[in-house]
Amino acid sequence: MAIVVSVLKEADGENRVALTPDIAAKLVKNKFKVLVEKNAGVKAFYSDDGYINAGAEVVNRTEALKADIVTVVNEPTAASLKKLSKGQTIIGMLNPMGDKKAVEELSTAGVNSLAFELLPRTVSRAQNMDANSSQKSIAGYKAALLAADTYPQYFPMMMTAAGTARPAKVLVIGAAVAGLQAIGTAHRLGAVVSGYDIREDARGQIESLAAKALISAVQVKDENGYARALTADERQAQQTELAGFIAENNVIITTAQVPGGKPPVVVSKKAVDNAQAGTVFIDLGSSDLGGNVEGSKPGQTVITKSGALIVGAGDLASRLPKSSSDMYAKNIQNTINYIVKDGEIVLDLDDDVLTDLVATAGGEITSNFLRGRLGLEKRAAKIEPEVKKEAAK
Amino acid sequence: MAIVVSVLKEADGENRVALTPDIAAKLVKNKFKVLVEKNAGVKAFYSDDGYINAGAEVVNRTEALKADIVTVVNEPTAASLKKLSKGQTIIGMLNPMGDKKAVEELSTAGVNSLAFELLPRTVSRAQNMDANSSQKSIAGYKAALLAADTYPQYFPMMMTAAGTARPAKVLVIGAAVAGLQAIGTAHRLGAVVSGYDIREDARGQIESLAAKALISAVQVKDENGYARALTADERQAQQTELAGFIAENNVIITTAQVPGGKPPVVVSKKAVDNAQAGTVFIDLGSSDLGGNVEGSKPGQTVITKSGALIVGAGDLASRLPKSSSDMYAKNIQNTINYIVKDGEIVLDLDDDVLTDLVATAGGEITSNFLRGRLGLEKRAAKIEPEVKKEAAK
Repeated sequence: MAIVVSVLKEADGENRVALTPDIAAKLVKNKFKVLVEKNAGVKAFYSDDGYINAGAEVVNRTEALKADIVTVVNEPTAASLKKLSKGQTIIGMLNPMGDKKAVEELSTAGVNSLAFELLPRTVSRAQNMDANSSQKSIAGYKAALLAADTYPQYFPMMMTAAGTARPAKVLVIGAAVAGLQAIGTAHRLGAVVSGYDIREDARGQIESLAAKALISAVQVKDENGYARALTADERQAQQTELAGFIAENNVIITTAQVPGGKPPVVVSKKAVDNAQAGTVFIDLGSSDLGGNVEGSKPGQTVITKSGALIVGAGDLASRLPKSSSDMYAKNIQNTINYIVKDGEIVLDLDDDVLTDLVATAGGEITSNFLRGRLGLEKRAAKIEPEVKKEAAK
Repeated sequence: MAIVVSVLKEADGENRVALTPDIAAKLVKNKFKVLVEKNAGVKAFYSDDGYINAGAEVVNRTEALKADIVTVVNEPTAASLKKLSKGQTIIGMLNPMGDKKAVEELSTAGVNSLAFELLPRTVSRAQNMDANSSQKSIAGYKAALLAADTYPQYFPMMMTAAGTARPAKVLVIGAAVAGLQAIGTAHRLGAVVSGYDIREDARGQIESLAAKALISAVQVKDENGYARALTADERQAQQTELAGFIAENNVIITTAQVPGGKPPVVVSKKAVDNAQAGTVFIDLGSSDLGGNVEGSKPGQTVITKSGALIVGAGDLASRLPKSSSDMYAKNIQNTINYIVKDGEIVLDLDDDVLTDLVATAGGEITSNFLRGRLGLEKRAAKIEPEVKKEAAK
């Protein structure tokens, strides 16, 4: 009997969808049954008809929530999560670090939840499931486009009969996945690009994109080589250092996000106030909890007194909805393939990917990475979670 | 005594300004007196203080309208034009082919008017005054950016851990100034670009930008080598031919404008209806008189039933306001330099640039090009127009 996979329609403001017709067709070909909540793909330019042609069935939310595997982009509402029951599996960006209550409720209900935020980034065979990276890459691309479309001047140098226009100077703060893609795209558009990072390791990557590397004098990293949170003093020193770089540039793109937490302020009010009229700040860290640029507002463009433009852009992957859904759906498909063996869902919690990726299973909070973040000890016992099948039969 | 040059604040919806602080400073240095209407540059990110620092004086509209030379981007209101008097000179994109009444009134009032729409494009020393070209070039650049920002998928090919995304296919219809710049910018962004034109001459220019040249089987041009208006039958044959090309592309940019007139429809309703969800049309011909794409609306993004996006984008130079003002102000400066000799304004109507560029002077409609368009005979007599000086004293 077929394993039933469903995809939910996301909340308002989210344009992505977790499964595309293309991936639905591949799942159907691999003997899954696919249920699509009505209009789930419309904002990503995928119509219900496209899914039906792919062999999927269009259903209401109640039906979609009965599937063996429920797929989502973002954490669904509490009301929807409550309808999941023991042995069902949900896969998505479930915000486990930001919504501890939901994690506990999923755990208590015996739901198996796989949260992409928990995927170990050091295991190379997990790369094709890495939704965090695929979506950040899109956000970085889109950030450079949005910057060019917001900036009131040319990005490239232009030589015309009437004279020459100088190229825009673009500073990308944070050279991880999003930042590197923003650097590459701004460079494509002809801007003079610098990349700032606190990791010395970023220098080579920035320079490989023909950009100037600005490595912070404030040097901190965690045991995995990623930037760790700064102390207040370190943050102050960094802001002072950055203020100098910001003043030399026309466009500043910031990329510092903290999963489930308040993003750090990397551009101070003083640096914003000093910016010339027409300077553009693109704040990829922008969220309801705050942003990287003081004064930014999610989804809005704020014009400061001095005429600088601050764009709150924490949702950029959603603003390239077809490509981001395509990439995300591939991450979902790869994750499903990873946990399904011979027509059965198998969650091996000793596997070095699943040990972190699986947030809850068998009535426990299972992810050791998540347990650490929540202040829990490592899980002790071996857990063999129950998995539900053919729920929709 | 100094010649007085003024710049007006444009109407709502226009972000450009005809003089920038940089050009104002150069005029002041060359012994002109410069008057700036209050807040004229604000939407182009040029504050009144910037002009004051450049040596200009900030005034109200009444004062600005008394200058020897009044500069504008677009045709001012009838009320403002009425305040100009004999011997004053106005320079701008004055819409002489679209507003015959204004031309007649300026003529009757004895105002000297220089309209960039009338600049002969075959005289090479007029190139640095060619505001039409400088602004169309910006519109083309911006069209490609806007297309990339509207299209729900990547423009470049992307190879990622989760799979490969194919590059966008972009078709630019019309390979004149705007079209060529759109082709170049879309290519920079990694799209696969085709350029369509009815002129065989365009092939080399399109191919030099690494794009595929699609030359119409419908071959028409006027005596200057520019595309002439098509007959109804030719238009039909062209639309049929184009429908095939449109169906093969994801993004279509149209660039056909007619100075003062209704733009031609190059993308039919049928071609729009056949487009897949997520297809983007950028209509640079969009105006209150209609557009190049059936169903387009000026300044709006229309989503069709099938999920295609039609962007009414007739105002793109205004949406890159700082660069477009910079370029435009240089065109204005070069024009002023062209008509000022030894501290006097001299309008030599036998000069091969001014013979067309000067719409009205000495109480006559002087531009032979304009007279032709208005159905008037070539002007006969030699005219030595009066020019006003020190009007603001």
